[in-house]
Amino acid sequence: MLIHEDGLFPAEPDARKIARALYASVKDLPIVSPHGHTQAGWFARNEPFPDPAKLFVQPDHYIYRMLYSQGVSLDDLEIGRPELKDPRNVWRIFASHYYLFRATPTRIWLDFAFHQLFGLTERLSETTADRYYDTISEKLRTPEFLPRALFERFNLEVLATTDSPLDSLADHQAIRDSNWKARIVPTFRPDPVVDPEFAGFASNIAELGRQNNEDTATWSGYLNALRKARARFRVLGCTATDHGHPTPRTADLSAQEAEVLFRSVLTGRANAQQQELFRAQMLTEMAQMSLEDGLVMQIHPGSVRNHNRKLYERYGRDVGADIPQSTSYVDALRPLLDRFGNEAGLTIILFTLDETTYSRELAPLAGHYPCLRLGPPWWFHDSPEGMMRFREQATETAGFYNTVGFNDDTRAFLSIPARHDVARRIDCAFLARLVAEHRLAEDEAFEVAYDLTYRLVKKAYRL
Amino acid sequence: MLIHEDGLFPAEPDARKIARALYASVKDLPIVSPHGHTQAGWFARNEPFPDPAKLFVQPDHYIYRMLYSQGVSLDDLEIGRPELKDPRNVWRIFASHYYLFRATPTRIWLDFAFHQLFGLTERLSETTADRYYDTISEKLRTPEFLPRALFERFNLEVLATTDSPLDSLADHQAIRDSNWKARIVPTFRPDPVVDPEFAGFASNIAELGRQNNEDTATWSGYLNALRKARARFRVLGCTATDHGHPTPRTADLSAQEAEVLFRSVLTGRANAQQQELFRAQMLTEMAQMSLEDGLVMQIHPGSVRNHNRKLYERYGRDVGADIPQSTSYVDALRPLLDRFGNEAGLTIILFTLDETTYSRELAPLAGHYPCLRLGPPWWFHDSPEGMMRFREQATETAGFYNTVGFNDDTRAFLSIPARHDVARRIDCAFLARLVAEHRLAEDEAFEVAYDLTYRLVKKAYRL
Amino acid sequence: MLIHEDGLFPAEPDARKIARALYASVKDLPIVSPHGHTQAGWFARNEPFPDPAKLFVQPDHYIYRMLYSQGVSLDDLEIGRPELKDPRNVWRIFASHYYLFRATPTRIWLDFAFHQLFGLTERLSETTADRYYDTISEKLRTPEFLPRALFERFNLEVLATTDSPLDSLADHQAIRDSNWKARIVPTFRPDPVVDPEFAGFASNIAELGRQNNEDTATWSGYLNALRKARARFRVLGCTATDHGHPTPRTADLSAQEAEVLFRSVLTGRANAQQQELFRAQMLTEMAQMSLEDGLVMQIHPGSVRNHNRKLYERYGRDVGADIPQSTSYVDALRPLLDRFGNEAGLTIILFTLDETTYSRELAPLAGHYPCLRLGPPWWFHDSPEGMMRFREQATETAGFYNTVGFNDDTRAFLSIPARHDVARRIDCAFLARLVAEHRLAEDEAFEVAYDLTYRLVKKAYRL
Repeated sequence: MLIHEDGLFPAEPDARKIARALYASVKDLPIVSPHGHTQAGWFARNEPFPDPAKLFVQPDHYIYRMLYSQGVSLDDLEIGRPELKDPRNVWRIFASHYYLFRATPTRIWLDFAFHQLFGLTERLSETTADRYYDTISEKLRTPEFLPRALFERFNLEVLATTDSPLDSLADHQAIRDSNWKARIVPTFRPDPVVDPEFAGFASNIAELGRQNNEDTATWSGYLNALRKARARFRVLGCTATDHGHPTPRTADLSAQEAEVLFRSVLTGRANAQQQELFRAQMLTEMAQMSLEDGLVMQIHPGSVRNHNRKLYERYGRDVGADIPQSTSYVDALRPLLDRFGNEAGLTIILFTLDETTYSRELAPLAGHYPCLRLGPPWWFHDSPEGMMRFREQATETAGFYNTVGFNDDTRAFLSIPARHDVARRIDCAFLARLVAEHRLAEDEAFEVAYDLTYRLVKKAYRL
Repeated sequence: MLIHEDGLFPAEPDARKIARALYASVKDLPIVSPHGHTQAGWFARNEPFPDPAKLFVQPDHYIYRMLYSQGVSLDDLEIGRPELKDPRNVWRIFASHYYLFRATPTRIWLDFAFHQLFGLTERLSETTADRYYDTISEKLRTPEFLPRALFERFNLEVLATTDSPLDSLADHQAIRDSNWKARIVPTFRPDPVVDPEFAGFASNIAELGRQNNEDTATWSGYLNALRKARARFRVLGCTATDHGHPTPRTADLSAQEAEVLFRSVLTGRANAQQQELFRAQMLTEMAQMSLEDGLVMQIHPGSVRNHNRKLYERYGRDVGADIPQSTSYVDALRPLLDRFGNEAGLTIILFTLDETTYSRELAPLAGHYPCLRLGPPWWFHDSPEGMMRFREQATETAGFYNTVGFNDDTRAFLSIPARHDVARRIDCAFLARLVAEHRLAEDEAFEVAYDLTYRLVKKAYRL
Repeated sequence: MLIHEDGLFPAEPDARKIARALYASVKDLPIVSPHGHTQAGWFARNEPFPDPAKLFVQPDHYIYRMLYSQGVSLDDLEIGRPELKDPRNVWRIFASHYYLFRATPTRIWLDFAFHQLFGLTERLSETTADRYYDTISEKLRTPEFLPRALFERFNLEVLATTDSPLDSLADHQAIRDSNWKARIVPTFRPDPVVDPEFAGFASNIAELGRQNNEDTATWSGYLNALRKARARFRVLGCTATDHGHPTPRTADLSAQEAEVLFRSVLTGRANAQQQELFRAQMLTEMAQMSLEDGLVMQIHPGSVRNHNRKLYERYGRDVGADIPQSTSYVDALRPLLDRFGNEAGLTIILFTLDETTYSRELAPLAGHYPCLRLGPPWWFHDSPEGMMRFREQATETAGFYNTVGFNDDTRAFLSIPARHDVARRIDCAFLARLVAEHRLAEDEAFEVAYDLTYRLVKKAYRL
């Protein structure tokens, strides 16, 4: 058996009993997935997923970063190839290194999918590699494994994708135009048109102008184009924006200063400091627009992207070489908060890759400012220990009600149920400990478990 | 029942049994409260406490920061009003949001007071709001709830207040002049006259001169005035000073440099860097005076005060918008330590709002320098998880005997027994785990429990 | 009884049972000690260890830093004296303060040695001080307590010392020349000749030139001399280098820039920034040499050495006043990683004194770059809580297989079995929790326990 019914619950029998009862009350609730990186096209086209290697290994940098760290070559894994030449061989390499993932969340997610979706109960290894490959391949060709069938089987109430302002959203439109009644919504991620360091920044902005009939060579035309793009997203159900800046720095320049800065970054002559200032200013502009149109803001700062220069030059972005760095929110957010911090009509969800900020900065900030909420543990911290640390370090100051439920944040569609299951189990384990230590009454724990699983995410993301 | 006899103890039965036994040995020890913010006037005048809203909600920024974070208006809570217009309405708002405090220390403290002091056993909520209000109001009018009666009921052996060097200490004198034999002592908190950014700094220093017959326009007159003010505090039982600087930076300027700097800050023309340098120098000057007069120093750094500009402009200081920031002690303390670090006759108690410094900086420093001791977890970290993290992260390097027992640090007099009870329970829970894991012998755990509860605080604060 | 068979195991019975079984499978494995500070001369000469005070108290700054922090004078402890005048008195002072070490790793190590090696079962205290002194003294005079006998009794498979490139390694040679078949190997620690702030830097470099017949006044002669010194160490079994820099900063200068910088530091006219840059460059040079000759690199950054100025002036280095500081690896390591990060033939083992970097920086880096591995918790963090935090915070991202087993890192030969025992127990306790919470299968836990104890250290250090 790959997964156990008491997985992730405390070992102590009384606490475990409480955790089981809490989990039983939330495990079948619909999944609300307000932040992730699946592709709307899968559901628009509803074609079968490809082979196991293409499905599990190639898109998942959690997997191949670990293999790479132990000397497996990315070429042997056929990373970056549109078509795999020898997917079975890629799968075998992966299988023979599966022991590397012991005690990692990747292992939990994979075992959950192997067991629950594909009925596999013997551990993946060199020995079982081919059996896995054949079993998964066969199932992927059945109607039950088409994207829409899986969406329904997963009990997904809402699924948000993450999209460039330049995206046509044709796939989202196609889903709407079909008779299929699933709620799949885009998220407005403007990094390509607000981050001067983004590849093709200037041409992206020109394209933004064309698409929205605005002269984006001017500051006001640029802002108008962003407003129109947001409106286009909202029509297709979008309720949130997302911002992946290197730091959480914000600024509140005068319109004139902003305009001068905009011209400077547009010419490509701005230095690193000015580029950072522009991103900072754009967070405040986005907050202003959110106050107007009601989109919830998500800020995801603190990642040094593409740290491995040689891999970036060879394979491009997102090959598992993003490294978190120390992050500070207290001064960085002040300009934005000075202007909008007391607006109860605005919701800004803060994320971090620097766990030291949970108790020191984020919980105190979210426990005070009406506009702030804390996003769930992100990326490397979306793990049993990471989630538990978040609850232990944030709850006493921010409470439960300044948090917003779980994000799966995944490109791996098949891992969504596993990820939400881990989050539900850990929340129940945390609550069970509070009940067992008489820090929370049992009836309250049931209410909180429901809120953390279902109610808070819908409220925070306005879904 | 709002509180449980096994509250905060480990769930595992063997460890819980040990925790119970340890707790039984310390729970009735007198309370020594060497650092807090109660008002001597309450005990000097011994008048009834006002209504529940005025008593519990209005002075406690832990409470209204959380309400505010969820959109409750400070006006509706009548924050800042000397007299409440509709205290029952304030109470009802608080009661209907009581669920926000689940799993926070505020909830534990309140439930403890509601249960132990007022005999309330049903949870506070919208439904029970009026019953609470009436029960508490009624009791507050009885002799058993007068300040002095509560002081005695709480088994307080010592209670320290926190006072400006400009305070007349008339209330302290009045307590001494009455026949009441309680030990209530002031603490010398010189921020108003050593922090150039403090409101009214220059006039405060002039007033300091008048009160102490010194010419505080000169550096030597200023230092003499501080010496005299300290002496005045000592006469009324003061044993400690307290310093609330933004950073723990210290300096060791020559007398001449210090004098030039003093003149500069006094004129108000000093820049931020000079103001910081002056505070830094004053920590070293205070250490020098402590060596002379024996007052224990407490340093409370790392808080960005009044982070919410609009609330500060409207309501002033201390409205729940102080946010901790990353703090570094290693270089910052060096000038002071170079001069006085090896003086066993000096005691400096360090606090932090940056938990990352427990294992990295504070425990190594306190585990070496004879003059240094570690204060208990402070502010946001004065909580079950926060206290446990402190013991887990500081003990292995600093031991127990470089710590100084518990501070309640509260403005809320009625929460004092609850706060000390939480500290005793968490210390016993920590010790019980050590015993259960065979890391400490049981007889030693009893001795340590006594030391952490009673002996160390009296020794460190020279009480 | 000073030590308990279930020491450090979880209290919960099911998890404890698993921990016991795991521990039983690894407790008798040979000790591999790839990093430490014992003296080869002990084994070359095989003379009896001296009295208890000289053996336990004088060389162990963990012990006397704690005594000093509580006001015990270093003179009374006869620190720094080649011969102790009154060792029994030193021992009595230590014994009467033994309670200070409650819940510290020092206490665990000492109790283990007292109990296992000397058969003492009553706790050390003022009362038992003389009995301890006499018992230990007597045993130290027996053949069973000679260094070589203890080495064999400890079941040491490999023991590495730490040595200056200027060391003759005569003691290592003498061990080889004797008939004794023990594997004791040197480690190449070039701080005296690569750190411009090291005492005697210029003359050290001149001496390096003399010893290796190179003109170390030139950059190429200096590098050649280092290469030759490394070769000399390799002949005596050395497999690793070690680098104790203040920060993990690296640089990748051109040969010409490096040469200019070298001349500058050699003259002693370089400023602090240039000195730091030189150390940074030397890490990259050492990585280059490691690629050539296969020596594993260890980087130990983040300690502010000799923080207590007065003690340093009086007693010199290593008197317990080294204080960790905040450390950042992400940008610091980039120049080296840009050049060698993808070399699977290179192994760099990273250590830290800043635990916040485990989950934020080190696990993500080691979970990606093929050349990086994570060293075990170091110094203040080589403790039950510290080791557990390392596993909890690093494993989910780096896995087990990017870690390298345990280092005892000790000057105290008699504490080696105790330290390895603690590491084995904590690893088993961690694994037992994973098994009890159904996060790892039991058969896998046994394999991991073996790997963490024995296989990974031999692989990483190429032993």
